[in-house]
Amino acid sequence: MAVVLSSVAEICTRACVASRALARTDTATKNAALLAIAGALRARMVEILDANELDLLAGREADIGGALLDRLALDEKRVEAIAGAVEAIAALEDPVGEVIDEQRLPNGLDVRKVRVPLGVIAVVYEARPNVTIDAAALCLKSGNAIVLRGSSSAAHSNAMLSSIASEAAVQAGLPEGCIGLVAGGGRDELAELATQDGLVDLLIPRGGEGLKAVLKDVASVPVIYAASGNCHLYVDASADLEQALAVIVNAKTQRPGVCNAAETLLVHKDLAATFLPRALAELIAAGVELRGDGRTLGVAEEAGLSVKAAVEEDWDIEYLAMTLAVALVDSTEQAIEHIARHGSGHSEAILTRDNASARAFQLGVDAACVYVNASTRFTDGGEFGMGAEIGNSTQKLHARGPIGLRELCTFKYLIEGAGHVRV
Amino acid sequence: MAVVLSSVAEICTRACVASRALARTDTATKNAALLAIAGALRARMVEILDANELDLLAGREADIGGALLDRLALDEKRVEAIAGAVEAIAALEDPVGEVIDEQRLPNGLDVRKVRVPLGVIAVVYEARPNVTIDAAALCLKSGNAIVLRGSSSAAHSNAMLSSIASEAAVQAGLPEGCIGLVAGGGRDELAELATQDGLVDLLIPRGGEGLKAVLKDVASVPVIYAASGNCHLYVDASADLEQALAVIVNAKTQRPGVCNAAETLLVHKDLAATFLPRALAELIAAGVELRGDGRTLGVAEEAGLSVKAAVEEDWDIEYLAMTLAVALVDSTEQAIEHIARHGSGHSEAILTRDNASARAFQLGVDAACVYVNASTRFTDGGEFGMGAEIGNSTQKLHARGPIGLRELCTFKYLIEGAGHVRV
Repeated sequence: MAVVLSSVAEICTRACVASRALARTDTATKNAALLAIAGALRARMVEILDANELDLLAGREADIGGALLDRLALDEKRVEAIAGAVEAIAALEDPVGEVIDEQRLPNGLDVRKVRVPLGVIAVVYEARPNVTIDAAALCLKSGNAIVLRGSSSAAHSNAMLSSIASEAAVQAGLPEGCIGLVAGGGRDELAELATQDGLVDLLIPRGGEGLKAVLKDVASVPVIYAASGNCHLYVDASADLEQALAVIVNAKTQRPGVCNAAETLLVHKDLAATFLPRALAELIAAGVELRGDGRTLGVAEEAGLSVKAAVEEDWDIEYLAMTLAVALVDSTEQAIEHIARHGSGHSEAILTRDNASARAFQLGVDAACVYVNASTRFTDGGEFGMGAEIGNSTQKLHARGPIGLRELCTFKYLIEGAGHVRV
Repeated sequence: MAVVLSSVAEICTRACVASRALARTDTATKNAALLAIAGALRARMVEILDANELDLLAGREADIGGALLDRLALDEKRVEAIAGAVEAIAALEDPVGEVIDEQRLPNGLDVRKVRVPLGVIAVVYEARPNVTIDAAALCLKSGNAIVLRGSSSAAHSNAMLSSIASEAAVQAGLPEGCIGLVAGGGRDELAELATQDGLVDLLIPRGGEGLKAVLKDVASVPVIYAASGNCHLYVDASADLEQALAVIVNAKTQRPGVCNAAETLLVHKDLAATFLPRALAELIAAGVELRGDGRTLGVAEEAGLSVKAAVEEDWDIEYLAMTLAVALVDSTEQAIEHIARHGSGHSEAILTRDNASARAFQLGVDAACVYVNASTRFTDGGEFGMGAEIGNSTQKLHARGPIGLRELCTFKYLIEGAGHVRV
């Protein structure tokens, strides 16, 4: 395993040089490199698990806790899953070279808007070593060089994985430097990486709010923040109630720790006496802790159901747990207002059989994904047919929603003439 | 004329509220509002010219100079042109609601990716009062509220123009607050505007490098910087030399003060003895001052032509004047290298009859617009059929090249199901 001792600027410079060659690399070569990476991961399983063992040992010594240790741990099955994910990315369509738009201008100039790689993408992430390979595969497939900066707790695993991937990629014909790893998980390296203007075209943080706060302070390169998901479900008076119940339970409980899980339930006041007590009872039975507004508390009390009083913060929190805030609203308009005030622009859903309400909700709610009669849990690159995602953007510029291969690209206009001059 | 005394935060809050209504406003209402603005500008010509006179008076007193005074000055013809531009924007296609992509997922969910307004766009600009109306019209047409911050030297003109536009727009059915003007052209207001996180969705600076530098320091809202254009022309050995000459003279001299004018000419070494002296002579005859590399100087001397020696900075400067740097290169590859080192990613052109060279140049040059056998002067929203532009982006994220109506939008995914839950 090669020891990485280069400075952040050196790694980014090498990646920048590599990115220019990568942008011209054909699909077949990129796919061959990805398959070579998958093969190398399997072939060098023992080295990977040995490196991982060093991180686990250090983690246990530092007493980082069971949850973090589990995120950190690799075994044969997990490495196999990582290799399989790389093969799946190889099988995706190459976004580079796609013609987004083309036209012949009245003066005869041919203008094509063509998708091209961004250049160098920096990915900053925490704990999970699989991100090292997932992110590298997505960036290489989209013709970008990648600079990785993982956490120090996974230093041995990340170094081994990136070194194996880099060697395999270069042997398969990709340029040296196409996968760079910043050694050292400190704040200084992070700040240095985030200020490589002219070398880093995009930085993607994959981590908690602390990481994002640091970057907001120091970053001068473009960053896409994958913000939290404070997702709402609104049950309109006209909803199919059986469907609504199933969607609510799914959106809250199927995987409560992820950003597209529901955090607040809004119910039309006409359903206060009939549907609401049923929904509350079913959620409680499913193990969900409920926090209600005043009117919901009244309904719960009458039905003998245990619901805590919501405080103002409950409307803004992303619980990422088996907890749900519940409020009654007077109208679709009021639901839209509530979401405008408290939502994070991730995924919002209305349950309704009324076309006008559905339309008003889709028009009025400003979020990456607005659902009618479906669970918010579908906001995902895989589900959307993008194959894989490197994150989920709640920004409005460039990428909104799942960040897949296309979102890792920019475009350029290619214009062809016959000696055209402007008059 | 209403006196604007609100704080920056108040103006942005009003714009944010207005933006939610604007996002739901239909095309006909938006177009009617634009036509009403054009009508009001004509009807209130005297008030506009009176307000402008106050700015001119102050400008002459402050001795701001003839060039600035000319940029500041309005007359009947200029106001008529501004009104005409608004009508032209009304006639453009509405980008809002355009379906960018749609698919039915294997599970039956319908996913549509639909263009929607960004929300609130802040435009910071210098001198020219016409920007007040141009920018407002583009933002309203794309369903966005706008907050304007002009320079203090045009304070009276801008206040009058934005007040007329705002009144006409609201009378025609657009929400109050859809056009906001920040009174006061100071650094404090600029910094306040650039940090209205959650209220301002995009800030577009239209001004010089000084303005951009300030924003880079203080801005926390998203900014699209319209960078300078250090544009190159490369004449390949196989070029049609008559065409090449015409394109060179056009790209340099047709309007030298704009960002898509050529600043450096690269010529293949095989053309050193034949084409280069002709090109130099023709450029000199057209009034262009030339700065050559060593080899070019040799050629010029032999031909008895006056060319100054280029210093290192000449390759990086955007002259915006009748000056051109000239260098000989050994190959297309070397031209691409030169452009990678010195270009600003705006517009680059190759003159060639060789398909392989054209293809290599288009693949290898990383810029918003890459031309084959045409003048760089075509990089323009109007020329590209976008109708009008609010600027020209050399960034890679979100908007690259001309920023027209579509680029002032984001998108959202609208997903429709029949009670779909994730398993």
